[in-house]
Amino acid sequence: MAAKNKDKKFDEKIKKESLDSISGFGKKLVAAVENKNPPSFEIPLRSKTNISFDEKKKILVLGDKTSSRRFLNVAHARKFMQSALIASACKEYIEHDRTVGKRELYYNLKHSLPNSKENTFEDDIESGTVLNDLEASMGVLRERLHIEAKARGSIYGDITLSQAGDTFDCSKLGRGGWAIPGYTEDVDIINYKADFILAIENDAMMSRLIQEKVYKNLNCLLITGEGMFPRGVRRFIKLLNEKLKLPVIAFVDGDPYGFYIYSVLKYGSIELAHLSERYAVPNTRYVGMTMDDIETYELQNVTEQLKEVDKKRIKEELGYMWFKNNPAWVRQLEKMLDMGVRIEQQALANKSLDFVAKKYLPEKINEEKFLD
Amino acid sequence: MAAKNKDKKFDEKIKKESLDSISGFGKKLVAAVENKNPPSFEIPLRSKTNISFDEKKKILVLGDKTSSRRFLNVAHARKFMQSALIASACKEYIEHDRTVGKRELYYNLKHSLPNSKENTFEDDIESGTVLNDLEASMGVLRERLHIEAKARGSIYGDITLSQAGDTFDCSKLGRGGWAIPGYTEDVDIINYKADFILAIENDAMMSRLIQEKVYKNLNCLLITGEGMFPRGVRRFIKLLNEKLKLPVIAFVDGDPYGFYIYSVLKYGSIELAHLSERYAVPNTRYVGMTMDDIETYELQNVTEQLKEVDKKRIKEELGYMWFKNNPAWVRQLEKMLDMGVRIEQQALANKSLDFVAKKYLPEKINEEKFLD
Repeated sequence: MAAKNKDKKFDEKIKKESLDSISGFGKKLVAAVENKNPPSFEIPLRSKTNISFDEKKKILVLGDKTSSRRFLNVAHARKFMQSALIASACKEYIEHDRTVGKRELYYNLKHSLPNSKENTFEDDIESGTVLNDLEASMGVLRERLHIEAKARGSIYGDITLSQAGDTFDCSKLGRGGWAIPGYTEDVDIINYKADFILAIENDAMMSRLIQEKVYKNLNCLLITGEGMFPRGVRRFIKLLNEKLKLPVIAFVDGDPYGFYIYSVLKYGSIELAHLSERYAVPNTRYVGMTMDDIETYELQNVTEQLKEVDKKRIKEELGYMWFKNNPAWVRQLEKMLDMGVRIEQQALANKSLDFVAKKYLPEKINEEKFLD
Repeated sequence: MAAKNKDKKFDEKIKKESLDSISGFGKKLVAAVENKNPPSFEIPLRSKTNISFDEKKKILVLGDKTSSRRFLNVAHARKFMQSALIASACKEYIEHDRTVGKRELYYNLKHSLPNSKENTFEDDIESGTVLNDLEASMGVLRERLHIEAKARGSIYGDITLSQAGDTFDCSKLGRGGWAIPGYTEDVDIINYKADFILAIENDAMMSRLIQEKVYKNLNCLLITGEGMFPRGVRRFIKLLNEKLKLPVIAFVDGDPYGFYIYSVLKYGSIELAHLSERYAVPNTRYVGMTMDDIETYELQNVTEQLKEVDKKRIKEELGYMWFKNNPAWVRQLEKMLDMGVRIEQQALANKSLDFVAKKYLPEKINEEKFLD
């Protein structure tokens, strides 16, 4: 299917929107000074007390609480200076069409202030916190400010993408895939053939599914984040999901970490609750691994014993709103505790190497045996 | 430049060589049984006492010490069974043209032995050790046995590759690159234009160099391993180095970990000393970061304090043969201890975002300011 041709001016439009937000932010501060008012700006509170699970939207959201950052408050002055510095730098990055890593941003802006021993930033935790504040305050996604995420993970399948003037087919890349870069806001979809996106935890499982030509047989796009999906991969999945209206199916280890990868894809994360609408994919479905798979597919001999840290994590997850109000998920978590084991996706190789491709995934996906 | 067209039969030839090695291994065992001799095979010792630095070849090598694995020795019987099992599985993988991850191998072969409670393997450390032994014993690279490495890292630049029937240009992949798969033995080089390979520690630095079009301006291929280069990336670099006779230039952080990444690229690693000839690239050169860069480029304000663990690592490296007999490297390591700081490659962003591309790399590479 050919995706709609992107409005050629789309890139310019999002660039202008971001620049307008930054200018608006700056102009308000300048106006305050000119009117002899103390400059200040509001930041939505991102602490747990202001985060809730929106039952209707089915994602994590921020509440209405905000805090003010005031230039004339001695305790705020440093962060105020840092906010203005980062906002101004982002404006320059956008204007010069450069994207910048989080740590690179820190190094780029670290300087001694004139006539003092004070540095603009002492470490990238300081600059990262201010960046998060700015992002929430202006309501502009960090990537739209040209700050790129960590590059990790890859995509493989019948989809032709275009970026930075290049056009490439992600099913014509040998045994590898396209290495998903940290900035994908400008990726254009030329055409594709797929019914869904399969989000895979493990890169070795990705290799197995590429070899077994699962993208053809199940008509899907394969994406791996190599463990916990980094922000860049989640954003890219969201962009594909939005542009192509494709559902996402999570295929991860049957353990608290796999469950969490799924929940972050679907509901968003606590850390980035202010961005859930731009990251979370509420129509994500969970194909496996489940605790029931152990019996159904006779995998008892290839489970792994739970460690204390795993058990602790399971108990935490039993308290998460999106799990605790969902009987199917409570059952999985409790069954895991009862059995005292976890099951990795690669354990399916115990049946045969192509079992996952020929039997497990086709059976569960075609018969819609999902956990939702 | 067009690389020589690969002999079409090359793939079949390496496949046959590997199968012959496995068959030879098996036939020797069978012959012993038929002649009523106790079956056994030899394994080169891989402990530190049998590893040395070959001053002529300039790589880490294994000595002549071996140990025997005897079927009739009760202490050896389990490993003997495991060796035969893995050898037989690899034969099947090669015949069916499948490559298999290390953990997948473990799951694929874990079974209860008939009429016993004994498992073939208890964990993938057990199977991994036997795999290492087999690799050293048969003198066949693990990848040639169709066991793939971890997939991580990417390549970007003016090179057209072919694998598994696909042909793709690694300079036409937008802001990303080609995700290097865990198996690259069958990668064919169609053509390329480059004077050297730049091996980059940090994926965000890779993104910067892609954006600044360094591959064009400096005429090189960009490869990152995202931190410590995994085995798959090192093997791929070695294949490019061998086939294209391109030197490798390492661009890493100025700290003991960056130095170690460089030394593993150049000399091999202690863990894989039996494979140095197939991994190490003796003509690897070191462009940076160096302790001298801190003064030359006035980066004093963006160094990081050494931690105790860093200092300990530096002292260890001062004892490594390839560093301790090289005054230039001893000077770097001692200077690092004296100054008490380390310097990351991204710190160059403190001058300006394009400083690394416009000034640092061109200046140091064109004037051959290398540490060797």
